[in-house]
Amino acid sequence: MPEPLFNSSLAVPPSPLPPAPPPLLYADTERSADALYFGRVSVPDPFVALAAHGKKYAVVSALEFGRVRRDSAFDRVLPLETYLAKAREIWPQRKPGAAEVIFILARELRQLSFTVPEDFPAGVYEKLFELGLDLTVANGPLFPAREIKTPVEIAALREGNRCSALGIAAAATVLRASKIRGRALIYQGKPLTSERLKFAIESACLAAGAVSANTIAAGGDQACDPHERGSGPLRPHELIIVDVFPRVSASGYHGDMTRTFLRGHASDAQRALVAAVRAAQLAALKTVRAGVTGRAVHEAVVATFAARRYETRHTPQGSSGFFHGTGHGLGLAVHESPGVSSRYDHILRRGTVVTIEPGLYYPGLGACRIEDVVQVTATGHNLLSKSPYTWELR
Amino acid sequence: MPEPLFNSSLAVPPSPLPPAPPPLLYADTERSADALYFGRVSVPDPFVALAAHGKKYAVVSALEFGRVRRDSAFDRVLPLETYLAKAREIWPQRKPGAAEVIFILARELRQLSFTVPEDFPAGVYEKLFELGLDLTVANGPLFPAREIKTPVEIAALREGNRCSALGIAAAATVLRASKIRGRALIYQGKPLTSERLKFAIESACLAAGAVSANTIAAGGDQACDPHERGSGPLRPHELIIVDVFPRVSASGYHGDMTRTFLRGHASDAQRALVAAVRAAQLAALKTVRAGVTGRAVHEAVVATFAARRYETRHTPQGSSGFFHGTGHGLGLAVHESPGVSSRYDHILRRGTVVTIEPGLYYPGLGACRIEDVVQVTATGHNLLSKSPYTWELR
Repeated sequence: MPEPLFNSSLAVPPSPLPPAPPPLLYADTERSADALYFGRVSVPDPFVALAAHGKKYAVVSALEFGRVRRDSAFDRVLPLETYLAKAREIWPQRKPGAAEVIFILARELRQLSFTVPEDFPAGVYEKLFELGLDLTVANGPLFPAREIKTPVEIAALREGNRCSALGIAAAATVLRASKIRGRALIYQGKPLTSERLKFAIESACLAAGAVSANTIAAGGDQACDPHERGSGPLRPHELIIVDVFPRVSASGYHGDMTRTFLRGHASDAQRALVAAVRAAQLAALKTVRAGVTGRAVHEAVVATFAARRYETRHTPQGSSGFFHGTGHGLGLAVHESPGVSSRYDHILRRGTVVTIEPGLYYPGLGACRIEDVVQVTATGHNLLSKSPYTWELR
Repeated sequence: MPEPLFNSSLAVPPSPLPPAPPPLLYADTERSADALYFGRVSVPDPFVALAAHGKKYAVVSALEFGRVRRDSAFDRVLPLETYLAKAREIWPQRKPGAAEVIFILARELRQLSFTVPEDFPAGVYEKLFELGLDLTVANGPLFPAREIKTPVEIAALREGNRCSALGIAAAATVLRASKIRGRALIYQGKPLTSERLKFAIESACLAAGAVSANTIAAGGDQACDPHERGSGPLRPHELIIVDVFPRVSASGYHGDMTRTFLRGHASDAQRALVAAVRAAQLAALKTVRAGVTGRAVHEAVVATFAARRYETRHTPQGSSGFFHGTGHGLGLAVHESPGVSSRYDHILRRGTVVTIEPGLYYPGLGACRIEDVVQVTATGHNLLSKSPYTWELR
């Protein structure tokens, strides 16, 4: 799934930092990939997690206690109820919350300064400031190591992309099996819609153990809005963008792949568009290796489009051409550090995993995006996503 | 899905407030139900949304621009790229981000004070403070009106629970069709596992247009951890908790229902346990009406369990008995205001939608939870979730 050229959580390059205070989180693991990365356990409601003196602590309610004690990376798991009771003793006038719990634990551990992520909740941040904790908001990723994937993480990302590929294959199968009747595509006796195509994709992902939410299957002018998921009938002879970014239920890691299809006969302009996008993707992939900047990779895409006279225009009604980032980091979050676009002049490092997904969007003609996932190596990249590039399905 | 007795985002009762400054958000609509509620459009990356002088504004990238302009509740949709360019002019030395964009827009609109939600990102909060905006963190829900559901929202919640019920029915069908072979349940020739049961549930939800993630299908002692999703073989003659909280893709609203099943023959102790939980649910439902407190509803559950001598114990190894809230608000988020538990002494209001989900958890014996969804009325409640209570599947 493409990312805007700008994204605040990726805006600051990870770089060698002076030793920072240990991390403090208050988040659930559905919304915070940092929390999942830190504790390696799924917790659906916000909970306190922090490090002190080299050990990881979590404070969870009785709902999670036994499970988190058994199945997580935390060294100590503490019962929330006990800390709430302590808080009620100290502050009988208040309704204690996360800030009071954090403060009591921090005092017990004699660790009064922490680094919090940029998305740490402002309500808790403000209360902790008033209580006297010394908090520093991370300047960039809270865990820069999240960017460099371990072999176990690479296996999980391959699995995520295997699920993406199964979804894309399911879409291709449905499109091939659809009959062209005038301006309609007929699948199993009924008009093929974006919704039906997404159902085929999401069912294939589910059967493979991954949840694909917000799947994109958008045709024609709808696909010219890159984050439009698509709705209503799909048409023959129109470009259809299929973008599948499922999350593997067992690991929490994602796949993220896009193919663009057309059922019927493509026009010369459509063929030239798809060829340009694939050429741009290959040009970008050719530049990827440890040591290059995200910006240099992005510029390979921009140069390819410029050479083929595909212009990018911004008007009060919207944009056309190429107007998103070339790629983004992929892991426990669909969009994570590092970004691959004009905004990112920091260096791709060995072991980083990024998407490479140029696209062109021209209302009237249609849109094409092709997306794969690679791991950056010392000399180039390893492809972690595999799916055919056949797109014109006659 | 049960909620802990404590949850910071619900810790403060909604109440009549003095006129607050208008809302300011920086969030994506996957993670922030407030952002989805405010703009009524799905935006997968964090974006700026605020109100000023009675109008709603959004600042989005070219990726979203056309779609958000067309399909949202925003009065004005502004291009992020323009605001970033303005920021680069004002602060040539900085990499501009969300804070700079918000500051420039606020100045243009002559609206320099805002209310932000408790989960507003601390990184942006801190920068806006430095830039001189006057931000107040909401004391409780940012949009208290979110708690009172409109008829359109009620229809969406009924639809969510219809999807939950389809998932639960799929689970019952699989369990009934499973054969008992010693300590194993055999379904379609292979041992029935939590994973296979969840697949049946999630497929049924998907076919109905809803994504069910983190579905719980846990048997035996696994189910004694209320948020354990379940893994491995399911056994005959054991209680199996099935908790299904899908999100309807079209609307973003959730269902949230739980049934507890047993394939085979229940023991007297298992029957007594299930009867106690259902009695507690009925006792709680009987107390629900506009004007009562969440605490009073919760106490009806506690009293029912106490009368039947079901004790709640907390040990260093974990808890047993009844140790979560009786219910929680349901809407665009699975857990939202108001809470229904010992912590919540604020009053249930007419039009509020809450779950009622008592449970008992005893390692060795097993666990039972039964969950339905109701809308609070002046005189009682309307049931929004419908599914049979038959549980012993012989």
